[in-house]
Amino acid sequence: MVGIAILGYGVVGSGVYEVIRKNSDGITRRAGTKIDIKHILDIREFNSHPEKELFTKNYDDILTDTDVSVVVEVMGGVNPAYEFTKRALMAKKSVVTSNKELVAKHGCELLKLASENRVHYLFEASVGGGIPIIRPLKLCLAANEISEITGILNGTTNYILTQMINKDETMENALKKAQDKGYAEKNPSADIDGIDAVRKIAILTSLAFGKYVDSTKIPVTGIRNVTLTDVEYAKKSGCVIKLCGHCRALENGKLDVYVSPCFVPDESPLASVDGVFNAILVKGNAVGDALFYGRGAGKLPTASAVVSDVIEIAKSGENTDSPVWEDVGGGILENSENSVSKHFARVKADDKESVKAEIEKIFDGAQIIDAEDGEIGFVTDEMTAKDFENKLNELNKDIISTFLVLS
Amino acid sequence: MVGIAILGYGVVGSGVYEVIRKNSDGITRRAGTKIDIKHILDIREFNSHPEKELFTKNYDDILTDTDVSVVVEVMGGVNPAYEFTKRALMAKKSVVTSNKELVAKHGCELLKLASENRVHYLFEASVGGGIPIIRPLKLCLAANEISEITGILNGTTNYILTQMINKDETMENALKKAQDKGYAEKNPSADIDGIDAVRKIAILTSLAFGKYVDSTKIPVTGIRNVTLTDVEYAKKSGCVIKLCGHCRALENGKLDVYVSPCFVPDESPLASVDGVFNAILVKGNAVGDALFYGRGAGKLPTASAVVSDVIEIAKSGENTDSPVWEDVGGGILENSENSVSKHFARVKADDKESVKAEIEKIFDGAQIIDAEDGEIGFVTDEMTAKDFENKLNELNKDIISTFLVLS
Repeated sequence: MVGIAILGYGVVGSGVYEVIRKNSDGITRRAGTKIDIKHILDIREFNSHPEKELFTKNYDDILTDTDVSVVVEVMGGVNPAYEFTKRALMAKKSVVTSNKELVAKHGCELLKLASENRVHYLFEASVGGGIPIIRPLKLCLAANEISEITGILNGTTNYILTQMINKDETMENALKKAQDKGYAEKNPSADIDGIDAVRKIAILTSLAFGKYVDSTKIPVTGIRNVTLTDVEYAKKSGCVIKLCGHCRALENGKLDVYVSPCFVPDESPLASVDGVFNAILVKGNAVGDALFYGRGAGKLPTASAVVSDVIEIAKSGENTDSPVWEDVGGGILENSENSVSKHFARVKADDKESVKAEIEKIFDGAQIIDAEDGEIGFVTDEMTAKDFENKLNELNKDIISTFLVLS
Repeated sequence: MVGIAILGYGVVGSGVYEVIRKNSDGITRRAGTKIDIKHILDIREFNSHPEKELFTKNYDDILTDTDVSVVVEVMGGVNPAYEFTKRALMAKKSVVTSNKELVAKHGCELLKLASENRVHYLFEASVGGGIPIIRPLKLCLAANEISEITGILNGTTNYILTQMINKDETMENALKKAQDKGYAEKNPSADIDGIDAVRKIAILTSLAFGKYVDSTKIPVTGIRNVTLTDVEYAKKSGCVIKLCGHCRALENGKLDVYVSPCFVPDESPLASVDGVFNAILVKGNAVGDALFYGRGAGKLPTASAVVSDVIEIAKSGENTDSPVWEDVGGGILENSENSVSKHFARVKADDKESVKAEIEKIFDGAQIIDAEDGEIGFVTDEMTAKDFENKLNELNKDIISTFLVLS
């Protein structure tokens, strides 16, 4: 018997309750013991809930209950989740969370605290919703040195971009559709400005390389300025535009990490990831490319990941090794101007032929894409962001938009 | 320190050696202990190997070495791998394998033997090469009731079909190309007749449903008879032809399991899995669709999966719970004539208009595909294999080919 308490009875919390009740027999069989919900913490009233006796507003009821060995923190946000998590770990209770904001911000400290108290701090649900990715990175790919990870980590922006690509919807209309369907919040900033995605790539990077990466130091560009014309250029260059989180180990020991809308080549397995789906492509030196795909959000998928962590704790007995994130400070991130990539740019061009000639002179090997009146698009060879900027200055034309192009 | 012995120094065995040597630091860090290769068993001489002192031809050297706690069986085939595995488990040594033939044939017994001796029998590498799929099914999706699994489980046949789809190569030429590239054996039967794929779907089915499924009882159709005209019909109906292994839980408690070339709709995430890549799509009642994609074979990808199992054993300490495959006999498989699916058929039709009318009368709701002279193709609604056969008999035309159509 493993007693658990659920902190927060919102979308994910009620999903965790539902999955544990619905799949009770199978969960007991696979965990080797029964998972018993002892308490649910929420400030709201749930008087008509069939198990209303489980609800409490007092966190001490949970901390002092010696039958509770796992606290499921699915409140979201930093406060009071941070305090609650610390108190649980110090009370030698394992914590399972879906809270990417908290893991990205305080994961390093909380993992250490879990390790010191010989309990678990697990967060499979914090990245990729129901997609198994945290545990595969820790366990299944443990024989590999990871060289890079590229992920479509936010379902809302992927839905919006897919609407633009497949249905010719404008950004504005696609966002409205996403809001109507409940995929996007009224204030969609966390999604479309890349804030959600950057937390997730920070967590994946920290896990893959064992070094804590501060998500607030990672360069991030959202999708606000992507237009249907950009989408059209991408198509003409054999690509689709996706909001990607990316990290890569460099030879100098630093990490190149960013979130940005990218041109993704049609032959990449990421190119066909449409709608609200997420996918994470991991490159390891033994496995080659491995891709993990599924629903990146939603009540039951996220609950599926949370409950899998609870089952892992139930199975692990005394064995509580946590991943260690060495805090090496901000210096671990390579300056973004040294980031190497192919680039796409659209520039104003009244006289197309002469601008083409200039582009071909300055950007040796560039692929010209002629899609619109009065402008020219082109894809460069690989170069640093700084070289790209210098060459654009040399070209000296009005820039309409630029994108990274994945190889 | 975990001492291991490698049985068989072929492609996979030498890959395991290479991965452990190359990624030694990271593996030690993630396993929490050093993985030490104590012996390599092979009947051949390796006198010029830099660590030739590791080689032995005598299995007793390994069984009697108390420093060896994990035996890595990567010999392939049933004999002597079966005997060697049993002797290792009875000597209380854990066994890790990539041997799908052995797991499919004797997995039930070997898991039981491992459990009785409180050691592990792990086989991540037996399905999907380097793709993490066995551990995700056991752990990450443990909160779910799995309803179905569909996989592209054989890279050789997927390479051949991709050549036919994308390069208009005939089956014969595509097979020759696969042989030239080393993807297919001189005698390609195990791949193209579906023998390899059926072992893998048997293992996945047993694991997902906890009930042992005998791979020799699963209906299997290979790709030998797939033609470029079939490929063309698939395209016209918005599909691609893939060799799929499929299992599904039925309401009557039985399992519908098969391997067959299928029409896979373009919008399925399996449709874009090309070349030698494999992918496995799992449907769970909480997670929805989850897809795992990567290299299904090859020296280092397979070694990556083998070594991840060794690391799991190193981390697990005394904790040795094995999955249990209940042996419920052959009755667990539903009779294939009750299998429900959409179907595609090509029939001879000298007088197309009258045959179309007959098809539309007999197969209410069928989608007609007119692609070739003197014949008609059509896709039916969902029906049992038996109903499909009865209706084809009623239509009473010469049948050129039939395929299952995935929904």
